[in-house]
Amino acid sequence: MTMTRANDDVVALARQLLACPSVTPATGAVFAALEDMLVPLGFTVDRFVVGEAPDGPVENLLAWRTTGAGPHFAFAGHLDVVPPGPGWTSDPFAPEIRGDLLYGRGAVDMKGSIAAFVAALGTLSDDLPGTISLIITGDEEGPAVYGTLALMERMAARELRPDLCVVGEPTSSTRLGDVVKIGRRGSVNMWISVAGTQGHVAYPHLADNPVPRLVRILAAIDALVLDEGTDWFQPSNIEITDMEVGNPTTNVIPGAANARISIRFNDQHSGASLVERISAIAAVEGGTVMAKISGEPFLTAPGTLSNLVSGAIRQVTGLEAELSTTGGTSDARFLSRLCPVVEFGLNNATMHKLDEAVAVQDLRDLVEIYRLIVERALGQPVGA
Amino acid sequence: MTMTRANDDVVALARQLLACPSVTPATGAVFAALEDMLVPLGFTVDRFVVGEAPDGPVENLLAWRTTGAGPHFAFAGHLDVVPPGPGWTSDPFAPEIRGDLLYGRGAVDMKGSIAAFVAALGTLSDDLPGTISLIITGDEEGPAVYGTLALMERMAARELRPDLCVVGEPTSSTRLGDVVKIGRRGSVNMWISVAGTQGHVAYPHLADNPVPRLVRILAAIDALVLDEGTDWFQPSNIEITDMEVGNPTTNVIPGAANARISIRFNDQHSGASLVERISAIAAVEGGTVMAKISGEPFLTAPGTLSNLVSGAIRQVTGLEAELSTTGGTSDARFLSRLCPVVEFGLNNATMHKLDEAVAVQDLRDLVEIYRLIVERALGQPVGA
Ligand SMILES: [Zn+2]
Ligand SMILES: [Zn+2]
Repeated sequence: MTMTRANDDVVALARQLLACPSVTPATGAVFAALEDMLVPLGFTVDRFVVGEAPDGPVENLLAWRTTGAGPHFAFAGHLDVVPPGPGWTSDPFAPEIRGDLLYGRGAVDMKGSIAAFVAALGTLSDDLPGTISLIITGDEEGPAVYGTLALMERMAARELRPDLCVVGEPTSSTRLGDVVKIGRRGSVNMWISVAGTQGHVAYPHLADNPVPRLVRILAAIDALVLDEGTDWFQPSNIEITDMEVGNPTTNVIPGAANARISIRFNDQHSGASLVERISAIAAVEGGTVMAKISGEPFLTAPGTLSNLVSGAIRQVTGLEAELSTTGGTSDARFLSRLCPVVEFGLNNATMHKLDEAVAVQDLRDLVEIYRLIVERALGQPVGA
Repeated sequence: MTMTRANDDVVALARQLLACPSVTPATGAVFAALEDMLVPLGFTVDRFVVGEAPDGPVENLLAWRTTGAGPHFAFAGHLDVVPPGPGWTSDPFAPEIRGDLLYGRGAVDMKGSIAAFVAALGTLSDDLPGTISLIITGDEEGPAVYGTLALMERMAARELRPDLCVVGEPTSSTRLGDVVKIGRRGSVNMWISVAGTQGHVAYPHLADNPVPRLVRILAAIDALVLDEGTDWFQPSNIEITDMEVGNPTTNVIPGAANARISIRFNDQHSGASLVERISAIAAVEGGTVMAKISGEPFLTAPGTLSNLVSGAIRQVTGLEAELSTTGGTSDARFLSRLCPVVEFGLNNATMHKLDEAVAVQDLRDLVEIYRLIVERALGQPVGA
C-alpha cells in the first residue's frame, strides 16, 4: 500500500458510507459497508443488535485486530445521522463533490471521520505491535442507551481493554486541527416544587402563597457561583429553564409553584453534589427537588494522549490545537471510564445543518493525522 | 300600620323574593315581585333593561318616593344570586323555615336585606320630608358592567341625587350588627413580561435567559411595603398569582418569561400609581407591564352616616359595630362617587354557600335597624 492510494481511497470510502441512508438509529447497509472495508484489513467484526423499545433495538459494530503484544488503541464513533430535513441542494444520501467539498448527511458528523480512520488503517506498517479496535454505534444521535454503553459491555465480555481512545466527533472549529476536546462538562436537570395553601387574594392571611418562596429559591440559585472555572474547564453554569404555576384565576392565590433548572458543570462537582446543594437551598423555603443527571463530567488531563494527538495535528497542518472542554455531552463521557479519551475530527461548521459538507483536502489531511496517531499510540508503553 | 305587622311582613316579603329563581343576571319575576311591593307604598318604579352580550343585557330597577323637601336617602342592592349548586337540603328556590332559620338562595345575599328594607318602609311615619330611593340591579354577582353603573346614569338623567346611601350587602360577621363596611380596598391585576433570547444551555453566552430577570423583578415586588395601613385600612397587599415560561425542553434556555400579580390596595394609592410603580421596577430588568384596574378604593370617613347606622344598630341589638374596610370589592365603590356610602346587612356566614339561610329574628331586627336609619337620615340636614 502507498500513501497516494490511501489519500484517494478516503473519498471513495466516505462516499460509500454517505450513500447509505442511516437516520438515527442506523441499521443494516451502512454497517455492512463498514464491515466490508474492515474485513480485508484483517479485522474481526462483531455486529450485534441490542435493546427494546422505546430506546432500542440498536445496531452496533465492534471490530478489532491484534498484531502482537502491545498497546490497545481504540477509535470510537457513530454511523447514525440526524434527519437531513428538506431543502438540500442535492440528495443528502447521494454524496456529490461540488468544488472542493463533498456533500452528504454525515459528511463531517461523522462518516467522513470513520472513512478517514479506515483509510489510515490501510496505510499502516504491518509490523506495529498491539491491538487496534473500532467501537461504532448506530445510536449516538438518539437516546444512546444501547449504543456505546452496550459496546463497552461487549468489549468487557471479550476482554478487550483499550489503553488510549480517540473519538472521531467533529471537534475542529474553523480549520481542521484547531480544536481537540479533552473533556466534557456534566449535565443535570432539576425540578423544584414549592407547595402552599390556595386562597383568595382578598384574604391572604388564610392562604400561603408558594410563589414568593420559589422566587427566593430561584434568586438564591441565580446568585450561586459554583466555581470560577479551572485550567481546563469554563465555570459551571446554571440556567433556570422553566417556571410554572398554572393559575388561570386572577383573584386566586395559587397552591403550588414549580421551576426547572439545568446545570452544565465541570469536574469540580458531581451530579449528586449539585443535587444536594440545590436541595438544601430549596429546603430553606420548604421546596423539594427532583433531579435527572444526564452525564457526569470527564477530563483527560493533558499528557501523553493529547500530546500525541496535538503532535500529529501539528505535523500535518502546522496548527497548535486548542485543548477544549466546551460544548454538549458526547459518548466520550462513557469511554472515559475505560482509559484516557480525547475527541478529534472534522470541521463542525455544517454538522446537523442543511448541505452538510466536508472539504476533500480535510479528509486527506485527517487520514494522515489519524495514521500518525495510531502509529505513535502503538509505540507507547502499555497503560500510558 | 303597626310594628307587629311589619315584623311579620318581612318573612312573607323575603319568601316572595326567594321564591323567584334569579341566578345572575336576574330578570322578570323577581323584579315584578319587588315592584308589586313598592307601588302600594307610593313609589315610582322604573324597570329597564340595558346592555348587550357578552356583559348584558341586564335588568335593573330604580324606585323613588318624594314626600316634601328634605334629604335623599338611597338603599342599594341586587336581586341576582350566585348559582345554588347541587346538594341543598331543600329546593334553593322554595324558601322554607326550619327551626329558627329561613332557607333559600339569596336569604342573606341579599334578598333578605331588600325584604327588610321594604318592610321598614311600611313602618315609617308618613310625615318624614325628603326622598327615599331604591337602586336595585340584576347583575352584581356577574360582570356588573350594566348594573349599578347603569342605574347611576339613570338617576342622573332623572336628576335624582342621593345625599346618603346604605348598601344592603351582608356585612355582619358573627352577630347581626357586628360589622359595618365604611370602605373597600381597590384591586388591580398586572401582567409582567420579560423577553430574552432563546438558546441552548450548553452555550449560554449566545442566549439571554429572561428568567433571572423576572425573578429579580418578582423579588423586588415581593420586598415592596406599599404602606403600613391607615386608621381605617389594613396594609395594601401584593400577591404573585402566576408565573409562566412554557418551556418543555430541558436543554433550551427560554426566550420569554411571564408573571401575574394581584394588588388589593387602600386609599393611600390609586390603580394608576401602582401600575406606574410596578412598571418602573419591571423596567429596570427590561420587563413590561400590562394592567387591569378592577376597582379603585373608597372610604366614607367615619362621621354622620356611620354614626347614624351604628346608632341604630346599638339601639336595636346593643352591639357596637366595627367599622371595617376588609373583603373584596362591591358596588359601593361606584355609589361612593355620588355621596357617602356604607354597607350594612345580614350575617354573611352562609353567603354563596349550600343551604344559605337567615335567622328569622335577624330579619325582624334588621327591619328595625333600617327603619331607624331612614327616619334619622330624613331628619339630617341636606348634604350631611
Ligand atoms: Zn456526532
Ligand atoms: Zn351580594
